[in-house]
Amino acid sequence: MLASRHLNPGLSHQATSTARHLDQPLFLGIDGGGSNCRAWLQNAAGELLGQGQAGAANPVNGYQQALDAIVLAAEQALIAAGLAPTLLSQLVVGAGLAGLHLPSMQQKLATWQHPFARLYLTTDLDIAALGAYGEADGAVIILGTGFSALGSVAGEQLAIGGFGFPINCTGSGSGLGLEAVKLALLAADGLAETSLLTDAVFHGRTQQQLAEVMLKATPGQYAQLAPLVFQCAEQGDTQALALISQAAVFIEKVSQRFLDAGVTQITMVGGIAPRLLPYLPSALQQKIQYQQAAPGLGALSFAKKQWQQEWHQEQQESIR
Amino acid sequence: MLASRHLNPGLSHQATSTARHLDQPLFLGIDGGGSNCRAWLQNAAGELLGQGQAGAANPVNGYQQALDAIVLAAEQALIAAGLAPTLLSQLVVGAGLAGLHLPSMQQKLATWQHPFARLYLTTDLDIAALGAYGEADGAVIILGTGFSALGSVAGEQLAIGGFGFPINCTGSGSGLGLEAVKLALLAADGLAETSLLTDAVFHGRTQQQLAEVMLKATPGQYAQLAPLVFQCAEQGDTQALALISQAAVFIEKVSQRFLDAGVTQITMVGGIAPRLLPYLPSALQQKIQYQQAAPGLGALSFAKKQWQQEWHQEQQESIR
Repeated sequence: MLASRHLNPGLSHQATSTARHLDQPLFLGIDGGGSNCRAWLQNAAGELLGQGQAGAANPVNGYQQALDAIVLAAEQALIAAGLAPTLLSQLVVGAGLAGLHLPSMQQKLATWQHPFARLYLTTDLDIAALGAYGEADGAVIILGTGFSALGSVAGEQLAIGGFGFPINCTGSGSGLGLEAVKLALLAADGLAETSLLTDAVFHGRTQQQLAEVMLKATPGQYAQLAPLVFQCAEQGDTQALALISQAAVFIEKVSQRFLDAGVTQITMVGGIAPRLLPYLPSALQQKIQYQQAAPGLGALSFAKKQWQQEWHQEQQESIR
Repeated sequence: MLASRHLNPGLSHQATSTARHLDQPLFLGIDGGGSNCRAWLQNAAGELLGQGQAGAANPVNGYQQALDAIVLAAEQALIAAGLAPTLLSQLVVGAGLAGLHLPSMQQKLATWQHPFARLYLTTDLDIAALGAYGEADGAVIILGTGFSALGSVAGEQLAIGGFGFPINCTGSGSGLGLEAVKLALLAADGLAETSLLTDAVFHGRTQQQLAEVMLKATPGQYAQLAPLVFQCAEQGDTQALALISQAAVFIEKVSQRFLDAGVTQITMVGGIAPRLLPYLPSALQQKIQYQQAAPGLGALSFAKKQWQQEWHQEQQESIR
């Protein structure tokens, strides 16, 4: 059963009518995840001019923070290109955001009085797939702060995951962080072994201190503990290895689901992806590639495509 | 290693100096958990006059809601006793609250301008132990919305759990609810089997609809799904049975920790306790008793004890 929860790419809006006609558009691609927001700036000729980065941009876990991160990453990309940050109003932005498959988030984002010339919004999965395959078939697995995946075979789409922390985060950074915290608290209560990993999670804090921090923590803050799990595993910590093994088994299952559906190529993106890949069975590793830049390139091509469609429509209307 | 995170029972404060001298005190015991707040009203002769009940009273998951629940449960107990709700100002209240082992919650509660003559605060574990054993040794395991446990052997205390959702809720109502939601989302993605349980969790909703509700849900709302797990298990659902089995293994481990520390009697309280007990190994079932009323009786005896101490102190001071 193939089901689509792919966002209709008609979710776009412009800031002001005075900025409608751009002779020399600057394109900005945004990859907005639960821990980081990355921006890539290109001119109309397709030259990469600069990159920017800011914090968490999943609107589900902090709406205003996500908007601020998008604007900040855009300003940083302009500055990195030697351009004035005030050129925000000249940017044609394509943004793929985690959490944007939720209708409530789409509705909320549609009301944003953003500072750009144009803003075209879609999901992080959409831009990752576009960056990896263009219009061709294939599957992408995002393994960053959260987990989500999208496969496409002969025009049909199969979406897996993406429902957030803590209900749907197995294998992801936030999922590994949560499991590490659970383990540390149990170890201090004498219900699990203490280890390199549990000591690292406490970092000198008491159970109460750790709990008070984590009960208020965002998924991004849980994901900050994931690198500890990989570091401890590299030092032979059996508990860390067990957590990573659970994550690997899960990603194996997801990959098999795509292969069974007829998907022939799988791309992984996101901060956890390159760290987990070596723990997958070697036969599977050969079928999965890791592409760090895919979402950024996808966001840029999404921005251009939407802009060209709009331009074409305007031409049609002016002829009538 | 025995460590105490037992609350010093000195955390008390009175509302007004005009209400200081009560000739005929009415005692109210409050058992405040993550889903329910229960109140028991007694006169000075120890007669039970009435009971009341209101919603969630764990201040960690909703501070104002917890205060409102305490007052509402108290008013209901007065009404059930045929007394005026305005008699709140005559009540000597002993309250055991989930979440009150956290210092931040103790500090916050200490500033409450409550409507009672006296309010003595302690943890839910403290009143459950007091209700089950008085001053004698023994262990209590609270398995309600959350999980926590406290054992006492020869003056030393061993506290386990109580650090909240989702980091420390294995076996509890919120933990079972979370696992059921995780399973349902995976089943709909073709990564787990669909079953009676996963259908019951969705209750006709889509994955997105379920996710949007649960991402905002309190631990109490997760715990509302736990009865479904037990109902499906009773109908032979293997996934539900597996979740309950995990919870039972955890409680076995906790009980063994107490038995190893020299605890000779274990009492379980909380909404999940009577439902999980039949799934524990029969040898362990014989060592564990379930006492629904223990926390309420403990809260009442806590209120009386604190009141008598205070009265005794005042007498001493007036003699000097």
